[in-house]
Amino acid sequence: MADILHRIGIKSSSMDDVYQALTTIDGLAGWWTSNTQGKGNQVNDIIQFRFGAGGFDMKVVDLNSPSLVVWELAEGPEEWMGTTISFELKQENEYVILLFKHLNWKEPVEFMHHCSTKWAIFLMSLKSLIETGKGTPDPFDVKIDNWN
Amino acid sequence: MADILHRIGIKSSSMDDVYQALTTIDGLAGWWTSNTQGKGNQVNDIIQFRFGAGGFDMKVVDLNSPSLVVWELAEGPEEWMGTTISFELKQENEYVILLFKHLNWKEPVEFMHHCSTKWAIFLMSLKSLIETGKGTPDPFDVKIDNWN
Repeated sequence: MADILHRIGIKSSSMDDVYQALTTIDGLAGWWTSNTQGKGNQVNDIIQFRFGAGGFDMKVVDLNSPSLVVWELAEGPEEWMGTTISFELKQENEYVILLFKHLNWKEPVEFMHHCSTKWAIFLMSLKSLIETGKGTPDPFDVKIDNWN
Repeated sequence: MADILHRIGIKSSSMDDVYQALTTIDGLAGWWTSNTQGKGNQVNDIIQFRFGAGGFDMKVVDLNSPSLVVWELAEGPEEWMGTTISFELKQENEYVILLFKHLNWKEPVEFMHHCSTKWAIFLMSLKSLIETGKGTPDPFDVKIDNWN
């Protein structure tokens, strides 16, 4: 098994603002992909994330407001099957610290390398959304390679 | 054991340009940290990377021009001891693809989450250096959290 891990610090005194950006459709559409539909604020909700080349359906499997959000892939690319994504939040002085984990990849394939870098880019978009009011969700995201 | 993996694509027809940015002091100082000293173009060379808060001495342990660079940590923070860093390059149409691995972390500690995100930022700086002539090495690097 292989995992993608990240840590960002968002200059904010409100863990709830970050939690809202992870559990509401407007929030998620503001940093990950503009084409986000469904519902994400209760366990068992399904969120549909769509990108130019495809997308992911995520099932919300754990929530602990305002400090934890956990999704499991419901539908998506084969490499993501069986993986879990979690966002853990905590306040450290003037920062909301976000620990991100995309766990349980079967193999450290080349697509996993790509997704690791791309998650960093999208988490920086989340940081920007909270700090400045404006993120860079798909299709406005920073491109990292020939896959996107 | 835990690993950090990344993938970037640099718009360039020259793998050698990227290889030079990974094996020369001027190149490395252009994207990772401005304060880089030593030598990095032969096996057993030691490169000293210094940042505001400390630094790393890397020993070059494998080179295969222009497609592979491997370092081992010679001296640095305890969490990095025993870890290996590799850069694999290949040409795919108009992109030089870089697969990055920072392997063999003993534990997936919070500092590893930080380093994972920070490596993405620095690899994007390398991409910018080659594509535009200008990277953002420390101390001009994009800050991601309350640790840097």
